[in-house]
Amino acid sequence: MKVAVMGYGTIGSGVVEILNVNKDVVAKRAGEPLEVKKVLDLRDFSGDPVEKLIVHDYMDIVNDDEISLVVEAMGGVEPAYTFVKAMLEAGKHVTTSNKALVADKGAELIRIAREHGVNFMFEASVGGGIPIIRPLLSCLTGDVIEEITGIVNGTTNYMMTKMTTDGSEYEDVLKEAQALGYAEKDPTADVEGYDACRKIAILTSLVCGQQVDYNDIPTEGISHITATDIKYANKMGRAIKLLARSEKVGETYSARVAPYLLPKDHPLYNVNDVFNAIFVHGNMLGDGMFYGSGAGKLPTASAVVGDLVAMAKHVDKNIFLEWKEEKLELANPSQQNFKFFVRTKASAQEVEKVFHKVEFVDAGVSGEVGFVTCEMTQKAYDDKSKELSDVVQMIRFA
Amino acid sequence: MKVAVMGYGTIGSGVVEILNVNKDVVAKRAGEPLEVKKVLDLRDFSGDPVEKLIVHDYMDIVNDDEISLVVEAMGGVEPAYTFVKAMLEAGKHVTTSNKALVADKGAELIRIAREHGVNFMFEASVGGGIPIIRPLLSCLTGDVIEEITGIVNGTTNYMMTKMTTDGSEYEDVLKEAQALGYAEKDPTADVEGYDACRKIAILTSLVCGQQVDYNDIPTEGISHITATDIKYANKMGRAIKLLARSEKVGETYSARVAPYLLPKDHPLYNVNDVFNAIFVHGNMLGDGMFYGSGAGKLPTASAVVGDLVAMAKHVDKNIFLEWKEEKLELANPSQQNFKFFVRTKASAQEVEKVFHKVEFVDAGVSGEVGFVTCEMTQKAYDDKSKELSDVVQMIRFA
Repeated sequence: MKVAVMGYGTIGSGVVEILNVNKDVVAKRAGEPLEVKKVLDLRDFSGDPVEKLIVHDYMDIVNDDEISLVVEAMGGVEPAYTFVKAMLEAGKHVTTSNKALVADKGAELIRIAREHGVNFMFEASVGGGIPIIRPLLSCLTGDVIEEITGIVNGTTNYMMTKMTTDGSEYEDVLKEAQALGYAEKDPTADVEGYDACRKIAILTSLVCGQQVDYNDIPTEGISHITATDIKYANKMGRAIKLLARSEKVGETYSARVAPYLLPKDHPLYNVNDVFNAIFVHGNMLGDGMFYGSGAGKLPTASAVVGDLVAMAKHVDKNIFLEWKEEKLELANPSQQNFKFFVRTKASAQEVEKVFHKVEFVDAGVSGEVGFVTCEMTQKAYDDKSKELSDVVQMIRFA
Repeated sequence: MKVAVMGYGTIGSGVVEILNVNKDVVAKRAGEPLEVKKVLDLRDFSGDPVEKLIVHDYMDIVNDDEISLVVEAMGGVEPAYTFVKAMLEAGKHVTTSNKALVADKGAELIRIAREHGVNFMFEASVGGGIPIIRPLLSCLTGDVIEEITGIVNGTTNYMMTKMTTDGSEYEDVLKEAQALGYAEKDPTADVEGYDACRKIAILTSLVCGQQVDYNDIPTEGISHITATDIKYANKMGRAIKLLARSEKVGETYSARVAPYLLPKDHPLYNVNDVFNAIFVHGNMLGDGMFYGSGAGKLPTASAVVGDLVAMAKHVDKNIFLEWKEEKLELANPSQQNFKFFVRTKASAQEVEKVFHKVEFVDAGVSGEVGFVTCEMTQKAYDDKSKELSDVVQMIRFA
């Protein structure tokens, strides 16, 4: 079977590499060899082994009847959307690693694929090499999924781990992460939680079977976390992690991306460095967790190649996948319940006047008071915290 | 679609329960409702809601053309094998939670299923509710799997966790586990590693695509582990866990079940109590881990129902699965390399005379010496340890 790869960047070149290095094992599992016939890129890559496969016009792939499997690894919504749509309409199976495309257009592309008897797969779009999409869609199908909580951004997890182990400040760790290539020059999408937000939108869509708009998900990043917060976290025996969470509330879900204080006995507590993990709670399964390399060239490309093999085995069959275009109204995030850890310049007396029963945390930081509230709604906290002077920080308990 | 359940014990009744409680979500994902029509058991279950569905002769299911999906939850090789074979030959899809059956007859039943255009699935046979079989078969297909290391027996993991946290002796913890229903009255299959051995045989078969005979896998249990060993482990900052391991060696695999000393930074280190987890290393993926409830009625039944949904979606198609009946010759286990932790009544001088460079471990135990060898083959260790008087204990480093 002939494969086309759109985008010869990190992931695209990783896919070509795996199809070469693991050629035999891939052929055995797919039932026949998978061979890259065309690579779409704006660049020419003269001297590279793929040089002779490079095409610059996506219609060269659309019109090539020999090509039945297509990899989209360009990133971004456009022109990826236009290209992918054209491939599906031409009866070609498509796999993508592009979370922006899947979060935005997933439901529509799944419908188009179904209408044309082909498959649209996206295992690599969440959790890199970690199998999570297909386990949710084809293993945990006997369960009502009541919670998904993911550490789904390697950059921020590396940074939070470093701040915890070294006691260093955010800015220093960011520079280090950039020097190591873990963070981009403009780190906004990672550190402000936008990347994690798209991923939890995709996972929530899959478990509810409807379209979840990532714009509806309240999203905070880690750029406001300081070495002092880490001190308090250590004192409480907790770790601060950027979590992307989704919980079932009645007939809908409540989703949020934010830094949380995780207790030691939570399976995600020990997920460190650039690793990702997705914790799942099913009403029958109980707790489960999927852990691994959430990013990087080869782990992510490994998930793409897994999709290629699955599509090769189902080349004549659309695998039904419940993800309707109808939008899911998420639960009101201000009604979510939390315990809140708060730092303030106000006095302990003032804190108790406003919040009544609290637990004070003494991390040896002078000039301020740290405390943990009782469980209350986000709205109740927002109202009360306005009554308190000089709130320095608020981090939710997980 | 009509379902038959063979064996109305813990797992079988769990499957019936999930198909009732999660009826709507299962119907949505399977594409149509799944309804239990017959339940095979020797008992009558008068008064139970399934009473009217009970049949005593498996031929009542074989001859029922309305039934297309069958659950085998009887356990043991016979009569499960005879019944499952008859179901497949009658063109019915079968899912089983029965590791003994899968380890013994998996390759043959897969061939029979293929010959009859149906599927034989067994997600619940390893790791209970944890998705591991299907992720290996349908996600990590772009990888050469170089290592699988599992904590795949909840009973022994509970016991090792208890011994570690409470400092108690093996016999006391076993009694406790039996009282809690975590260990059986005759705990041999769990504590001697036989259960874990069958599971790693299944996982190894899946990654190599050939039949692995569990009789070829050297298997030690945990019944010789003492509170004193735990003291040494704590001193070394390691945890003793019963691991079922399989590693790629050239064109074959080397497998072993034994207690190992795991370092703190290993993803399996924090897998405690009755939880299971399977660590996987792929040549492209890198490290991955699947964690969750490895046993118990509903988690295990959840995996069976996941299989039912998958079979309902592929009712007209055998999903190709590479597991040939041809036997794989495992690598010689005496050529595996380890560091060995050893306790002996011999003197430090004698230890150094025999093993040369070692690291002594002082856990405050009088009358003996504890030490860690350099890395050497199992054979080299066996030879040397014969030269040493009074070896009290040996546990391998992981």
